[in-house]
Amino acid sequence: MAEAEQKLANAALRIDFATEPSRYRHWKLSVSGKVATLVLDVDEKASLFTGYDLKLNSYDLGVDIELGDAFERVRFEHPEVRVVLLRSGKPRVFSAGANIRMLAGASHAHKVNFCKFTNETRNAIEDASSASGVRTICVINGTAAGGGYELALAADHIILVDDGSSSVSLPEVPLLAVLPGTGGLTRITDKRKVRRDHADFFCTTEEGIKGKRAVEWRLVDEVVPASRLEAAVAGRVDDQVSASGAADAPPGIVLVPLYRKIAADRRDYQNVSVVFDRAARIATVILRGCDEPAPDSAEAMVAQGAAFWPLRLARELDDAILDIRFNETDVAAILFKSEGDPRLMLGYDGFLDRNAAHWLAREIRLKWKRVLKRIDLTSRSLIALIEPGSCFAGTLAEIVFAADRSYMLIGSRDGDNRPPGGIILGDVNLSGTLAMSNGLSRLQTRFLGEPDAHDKARRAIGEVLDARAAEALGLITFALDDIDWDDEIRLFLEERASFSPDSLTGLEANLRFAGPETMETKIFARLTAWQNWIFQRPNATGGAGALSRYGTGLKAEFDTTRT
Amino acid sequence: MAEAEQKLANAALRIDFATEPSRYRHWKLSVSGKVATLVLDVDEKASLFTGYDLKLNSYDLGVDIELGDAFERVRFEHPEVRVVLLRSGKPRVFSAGANIRMLAGASHAHKVNFCKFTNETRNAIEDASSASGVRTICVINGTAAGGGYELALAADHIILVDDGSSSVSLPEVPLLAVLPGTGGLTRITDKRKVRRDHADFFCTTEEGIKGKRAVEWRLVDEVVPASRLEAAVAGRVDDQVSASGAADAPPGIVLVPLYRKIAADRRDYQNVSVVFDRAARIATVILRGCDEPAPDSAEAMVAQGAAFWPLRLARELDDAILDIRFNETDVAAILFKSEGDPRLMLGYDGFLDRNAAHWLAREIRLKWKRVLKRIDLTSRSLIALIEPGSCFAGTLAEIVFAADRSYMLIGSRDGDNRPPGGIILGDVNLSGTLAMSNGLSRLQTRFLGEPDAHDKARRAIGEVLDARAAEALGLITFALDDIDWDDEIRLFLEERASFSPDSLTGLEANLRFAGPETMETKIFARLTAWQNWIFQRPNATGGAGALSRYGTGLKAEFDTTRT
Repeated sequence: MAEAEQKLANAALRIDFATEPSRYRHWKLSVSGKVATLVLDVDEKASLFTGYDLKLNSYDLGVDIELGDAFERVRFEHPEVRVVLLRSGKPRVFSAGANIRMLAGASHAHKVNFCKFTNETRNAIEDASSASGVRTICVINGTAAGGGYELALAADHIILVDDGSSSVSLPEVPLLAVLPGTGGLTRITDKRKVRRDHADFFCTTEEGIKGKRAVEWRLVDEVVPASRLEAAVAGRVDDQVSASGAADAPPGIVLVPLYRKIAADRRDYQNVSVVFDRAARIATVILRGCDEPAPDSAEAMVAQGAAFWPLRLARELDDAILDIRFNETDVAAILFKSEGDPRLMLGYDGFLDRNAAHWLAREIRLKWKRVLKRIDLTSRSLIALIEPGSCFAGTLAEIVFAADRSYMLIGSRDGDNRPPGGIILGDVNLSGTLAMSNGLSRLQTRFLGEPDAHDKARRAIGEVLDARAAEALGLITFALDDIDWDDEIRLFLEERASFSPDSLTGLEANLRFAGPETMETKIFARLTAWQNWIFQRPNATGGAGALSRYGTGLKAEFDTTRT
Repeated sequence: MAEAEQKLANAALRIDFATEPSRYRHWKLSVSGKVATLVLDVDEKASLFTGYDLKLNSYDLGVDIELGDAFERVRFEHPEVRVVLLRSGKPRVFSAGANIRMLAGASHAHKVNFCKFTNETRNAIEDASSASGVRTICVINGTAAGGGYELALAADHIILVDDGSSSVSLPEVPLLAVLPGTGGLTRITDKRKVRRDHADFFCTTEEGIKGKRAVEWRLVDEVVPASRLEAAVAGRVDDQVSASGAADAPPGIVLVPLYRKIAADRRDYQNVSVVFDRAARIATVILRGCDEPAPDSAEAMVAQGAAFWPLRLARELDDAILDIRFNETDVAAILFKSEGDPRLMLGYDGFLDRNAAHWLAREIRLKWKRVLKRIDLTSRSLIALIEPGSCFAGTLAEIVFAADRSYMLIGSRDGDNRPPGGIILGDVNLSGTLAMSNGLSRLQTRFLGEPDAHDKARRAIGEVLDARAAEALGLITFALDDIDWDDEIRLFLEERASFSPDSLTGLEANLRFAGPETMETKIFARLTAWQNWIFQRPNATGGAGALSRYGTGLKAEFDTTRT
């Protein structure tokens, strides 16, 4: 029943998330003082898949990979930047949104993963604003439709040109029978707080809204005549730069390309390896510590730059997870293992804590926060295996808490002279620094029903917790001895792989996010789950559905049953 | 593309939500002092549709209609009741949950509506506890599987017999490739706060959990040996009755059957009419005020009983909405109109405000709260038309605020001597008394981005607001004059009916619930939307899917792609 897959362009075999500004085909990043300008000027022939052109600044995943990369680079390579100016390089159009031919031809799995990634990119733009003070100003000179306007919604400030034709719109419902699913519906109700009947009108009006009404309904922040546009933009940029009150920032670091070796059944990075057992549908992700203790000064960290272990590991892990999400859709479960000296690794957390006010330490922690959220949102069963020689300490222990289940070996194995696995908690696990998208730490979420357990975990900070101790504290699911280990794990993984992948996706999407909801969780739950439902409905994606028929000249045919 | 519909049993033409204890086939309601006992003893031959037997206390919508009715009767007819004891009338089984053959044979629309209604029933059980102090104790003597355990989860206290075989389980994922979608996943994480890895284990373990572990993991509140069961139950009941501290309550009122006249294209109740325009796919719901002012004492209200206008209207409206949901799935939009003297109707709100401490006034307000939530959750476009002679005042004005859009005629029409439409706000619109499932009032939700507008609305309480005034206050979407009215409304409704019903369902499910999320909204969004997605997936409902193949002896075949 697997759906036909679109073919990657240029005979590529996998989707690659590594890029850098010199290789961008669609975005132009330039930095001048405290202002970065990101110009969207899509190369319509440089689509990720074959079979469509990226007309009218429409985008596919390839365009969004560049956008995500650009924001990462602004934060790490240009810490002096306080304002990102987002604009179009084409006349009369800001962006037509996600490319519809791409969507119509994509497999369900790709559509869902594409939307998830673009949502993560938009969230990262907002994270740069709220956590790093990098404000984004979006200039719409032309039409911003669907995903184009949803991108604008991620900005702090939207300027729309008042020229009688420039407009914002979310025409998905009337045109395509799908939702504005890249955060659009959630951001208009919860971020811009557009009144619900205005939102209803807006989302069902193909041509969108322009001029004064766009401001009155809070869809944009200001409209300015074309003649005053550049002056208005310059003014807003100056306002933001002044408001940031930032002194001259130190120079950034360079995000050098990751070392990667790609083989048929494994990927090797410097500190991460991924091994695929395709028969069992398992990817084992091995995280390696480093042998050097944390440096003794922030300057030394900056000197190490992208080679600084916590940063390198975060980037490698992020790339590995995205590779599995998009290129390995048959993988049912991800097993996380680690290797290294947990005390040494916890030393890096201590270092980051002590240097929390340093821009690079802050950005590295925020990067980990994003990577861990990406793991939380990865729809595969996540299992942590804690064995002798592992280093699940501090930040790395978060992976244990992100897992759906964790198994820890009691003691060591015969003939294995590595120390028994030990979890060490750091302040980072209890401080909320690495909060999930629900706003709580993983341990807070885990212990919603047991506040005492949370307090006990706090008192255990810094101790090496063996399997029995970790089990008693509720930090792991099961402690197993050597006699049971192999069979238990094997049976569990076989059973897991035998379940319907869809029901596991739904199960995990519910169980992982107990407690409060935020705009971010609403986007990934309420909005995304409805969109995924619609992506399955014949009215959208069936042969006579609106998405399938878009651009064919044929009118969509609908089953009128309301569900 | 409409799916094949199951046939209603006994050649019935429509699903009827009206019932009463003497007609129950599946539940036995008995009341003794402050304790009501509800025994589930399903008549397996009395299924709602043909083609399956309700074995092992499994349920279909017919069973749940009785359960919903029973709780309504406890609240209105037996206000003295402080504890509802929920138990099974069959040996060795509490309930096997939703009937799988029924689910496998049901249309997608019925599955979705069935789950919504059962969720509303469970929420009403919790509402009886939190708002009316009616505690539910659930006794599980046997197996409680899937929806059976989800019903138990709605109770305040769950007692499980410790006999080596009685257990609780959510086997949907391993057995059926669907989710425990009647609140199960949300209640284990957010109500019972089960640790996420325990929840993962529990929800993937077909045989469930029994005995001590069920308590340790907070899946039940206590386990007791069979020999001590009755004593333990009696003890818990006594505890709850004592804790309620209630003096002897006055006698209740009788919820007499609603007057209903069912014709091909209309339904007439005493204060509600529904007129179907099937070509246009519109149902017009007309709410009629009454000619009598509110009574002058609580005693007079009790004497009127079910004939008391606010109560009768609520019950009639509820029945009408459910009828449209289940029996009229082709209806795209519901138009709400009203007829009556708004001042007179507002007088009833004043009466209920003044008597807020009276049990019946409280229950009527809570009933309205549930009915209005039912409207919020009805997946049809909701439109309020405010015309001369209408009475959208106080509680009825909530229907305007529940609508996706509202249109109000400016002034009167030639030859129409009724007064122009006027909205009157009452305290009830601003107090939170009729809060939505997100915990906010409809006006708070509406004005999330405009706190000033909320304050202005408060200052307008009691004024008759004409179309211009209502528009200026942001209470309606559009004020139209007589010249534009007919064309505008017609074009809007035609356009609305031309959109994909699914995309409107998704749109409305997002736009109606701005702001905070609660356990209730999580159930209807995160959980339900994922379940609806899964209900569409071939792995569940395809020819070789798990739900379709359940009980056939054939193993399900899965597309292993993770999405």
